[in-house]
Amino acid sequence: MTHGPLPILDEAGVDRIHDASIRVLEELGIELWSEEARQLFADAGAIVEGEVVRVGRDIIDQALQTAPNSVTLTSRNAAKQIELGGNKIAFGLVAGPPAVHDEINGRRQSNMDDYENFIRLAHYFNAIHIIGNQVAAPMELPANNRHLDTYRANLTLSDLSFHCTAIGRGRARDGIEMMAISRGISVDELAESPGVITVINVNSPRRFDEEMANGLMEMSSLGQVVSVTPFTLMGAMTPVTLAAGLTQQNAEALFGITLTQLVKPGAPVVYGSFTSNVDMRSGAPAFGTPEHAKANIASGQLARRYGLPYRSSNSSASNVVDAQAAYETQMSLWGSVLGGTNLIYHAAGWMEGGLQASYEKLVLDVEMLQHMMEFLTPIDLSDEALAFDAMERVPTGGHFFGDPHTLERYETAFYAPMLSDWQNHGAWTESGAENATQRATKIWQTALSDYTEPALDDDRREALDDYVARRKEEIGGGEP
Amino acid sequence: MTHGPLPILDEAGVDRIHDASIRVLEELGIELWSEEARQLFADAGAIVEGEVVRVGRDIIDQALQTAPNSVTLTSRNAAKQIELGGNKIAFGLVAGPPAVHDEINGRRQSNMDDYENFIRLAHYFNAIHIIGNQVAAPMELPANNRHLDTYRANLTLSDLSFHCTAIGRGRARDGIEMMAISRGISVDELAESPGVITVINVNSPRRFDEEMANGLMEMSSLGQVVSVTPFTLMGAMTPVTLAAGLTQQNAEALFGITLTQLVKPGAPVVYGSFTSNVDMRSGAPAFGTPEHAKANIASGQLARRYGLPYRSSNSSASNVVDAQAAYETQMSLWGSVLGGTNLIYHAAGWMEGGLQASYEKLVLDVEMLQHMMEFLTPIDLSDEALAFDAMERVPTGGHFFGDPHTLERYETAFYAPMLSDWQNHGAWTESGAENATQRATKIWQTALSDYTEPALDDDRREALDDYVARRKEEIGGGEP
Repeated sequence: MTHGPLPILDEAGVDRIHDASIRVLEELGIELWSEEARQLFADAGAIVEGEVVRVGRDIIDQALQTAPNSVTLTSRNAAKQIELGGNKIAFGLVAGPPAVHDEINGRRQSNMDDYENFIRLAHYFNAIHIIGNQVAAPMELPANNRHLDTYRANLTLSDLSFHCTAIGRGRARDGIEMMAISRGISVDELAESPGVITVINVNSPRRFDEEMANGLMEMSSLGQVVSVTPFTLMGAMTPVTLAAGLTQQNAEALFGITLTQLVKPGAPVVYGSFTSNVDMRSGAPAFGTPEHAKANIASGQLARRYGLPYRSSNSSASNVVDAQAAYETQMSLWGSVLGGTNLIYHAAGWMEGGLQASYEKLVLDVEMLQHMMEFLTPIDLSDEALAFDAMERVPTGGHFFGDPHTLERYETAFYAPMLSDWQNHGAWTESGAENATQRATKIWQTALSDYTEPALDDDRREALDDYVARRKEEIGGGEP
Repeated sequence: MTHGPLPILDEAGVDRIHDASIRVLEELGIELWSEEARQLFADAGAIVEGEVVRVGRDIIDQALQTAPNSVTLTSRNAAKQIELGGNKIAFGLVAGPPAVHDEINGRRQSNMDDYENFIRLAHYFNAIHIIGNQVAAPMELPANNRHLDTYRANLTLSDLSFHCTAIGRGRARDGIEMMAISRGISVDELAESPGVITVINVNSPRRFDEEMANGLMEMSSLGQVVSVTPFTLMGAMTPVTLAAGLTQQNAEALFGITLTQLVKPGAPVVYGSFTSNVDMRSGAPAFGTPEHAKANIASGQLARRYGLPYRSSNSSASNVVDAQAAYETQMSLWGSVLGGTNLIYHAAGWMEGGLQASYEKLVLDVEMLQHMMEFLTPIDLSDEALAFDAMERVPTGGHFFGDPHTLERYETAFYAPMLSDWQNHGAWTESGAENATQRATKIWQTALSDYTEPALDDDRREALDDYVARRKEEIGGGEP
């Protein structure tokens, strides 16, 4: 990749956001609903008053010294290792929606069938590298143990790394145990070679609740990857200005990142950003806005200032897979790439500001991600590529279709999209005049029918089943 | 604008393309179907053999020394001056399609009513700065004088600068004369303050025909702006590799740019790029591809190497205003912006690879251009924007909706899109469940009904009418 990130702030601007966020941490502090976590901060010298923790810059600096600047995630398929760091980029499947949509069956509450379909599609398309959390939540299953069913689907229907839910220690621990089983190693061994990631959001402004703190501590203590990602809609959860939104995001992210290092120095941690804005006329959340794109870039500059891997998001508020869905997603995608992101979360399938997982949007997003991957491939400037000989052979006003230089390369010369239709209007009309959304339906249908389940050792499959059965019994009617 | 362009080639890479293109000019040359133009090159020391002109690097270097690095276009409204140069960007209306489409009347041959509507829309939306050539060509009018009707529409229905056709001297001269009339100045005075622009394509590979050469010479001799823009679809008009496509484009562009300076040293000239690729399975042209985006960036680097203003394009091959139309246009738009473009041609309304002007696509494009304009606005890092006081006031876990810092700013804090729908799914469904394309129809209808014709002095309007009438008589059945 020959591209660098594109700065949107100068160095003094980055320092200004940093300094303002340190002031927030030192003077206002963060509310932290976990006694255990507060004790870790107190032991490090932070000022704890009630549930509010005020953290000095020295404690932050110390944490940033032990946080690694690159993280490798290993799934049960070692060939699919993902490096989060440097100029590497990975794309994650949508996470969290309670509703699902496709053009055939319409919008509905998502269920386990949908969940499994999304995992199959993520496995099928090479552009998706990590499975999100509760991709299309199986709402018909009990809330306290459905994570077990989703983890099992992740590990049997795909061979990708995945997000484990860190709402409480139990859900995190289950994901860690099951990834270890699928790899045939112990949880201790997994700590040396992380296999799962979680995202810790913040109850912005400036509050970490107990479940999130516990999930973070469980993941970090076991050496798994934590992305601390304040979800900060400017005008609602932060002040209405981009400078302040970035400042508050940065303060909250640094706070969580510091906690990971207090739990276990050297624990893998990712700087997460999800700063967009609300519609100030209605209060509705908006995504893929110009402000969101700018926040994605500036956040990458902050992450690099701290030498941390950087996570951003693809997103759209559109209710339908249309031009708006495409341009909003493009805005967040380009902001992410120009921000030097290492992980684009929700990269495929996110609609309705995260309330809907869409089959057609997944196809559209994979297409746009593949465009981006091709865009990021460096230009070949070899003598063969410069092709003076071909230009010499083809007469002025002629064409290159039949030239040997073309014939040797034409099959792979250009990226061949799966969704774009480049026929002329007549041919397109004769072939049914389908728009991109209609074509996307056929593509996910074909993908599901062509999908092959990746092989998994019988013993490990059985061990996963046993684990799920045992844990469901243990959890019973309680929370994990 | 705090952004810089994003390099895709290192300095050595730019030099490599430059050197390869000089080799093409020195060893292979360009076929030039104009004796007058060939004589200009011969007088400058180029080697002319038959119709082929081989140009040495010294002649190119000399031309680049006299070509200005910034150009100002002045229309009849001085407040709408456009600077093409530095970090300024202007957006141009679609140019050239013989067909037009809207969701109410469908696809059809375009006519003068459509032409006038597009000019009204260009005038109405602030995001469009220059009118393209034969925006939606009035196909029912005689080919040899319809340019007069379109120029009159440009000058009466809008107050923008426009593209004048440079297929032959007459069409170029008419545009120049009519712009001068509308500004109440002479053609000599207009030469000191250019008001119109033209685009000189090339019959790639390596051929300038007589009409284009004449149009270029007419424009340059009268001090008007020429954008030399080889239209080079890789795999068809250039070799199949990006390095060669850029090399050939660069050779052809430098050749045309040099001709402008041989005609009149100091004549305003723009480095134009339109390098995309064909679908190698069918030969169909493709636009907004990853390769096109890369070409847009690399071409900007070449233009800056020569200290020239840079023109690129927005484009899509889609047959319908859908997600494909949006993502292809976004790819070319971001490539343009990251290439440091000064003029994005076809920025609004281009569909079907340039064969269709679309009312709904115009609205979609204006929305995407407005997103980009907002994206390019620098981040305010003042103390007021950093808003420590607001963060101090709002309690942890609270919200900022009612804070004074929000209330003072909420009306203008964020970009408010005209096309995006941010309602939740329920409200969106109740309000008719329209997609972006359907909403775009309402927006152009409203725009046309809200449009007001800009005032024009009666004498100048009459002079324009007289000019058109006189020229139609002169031209008769012949070519202008």
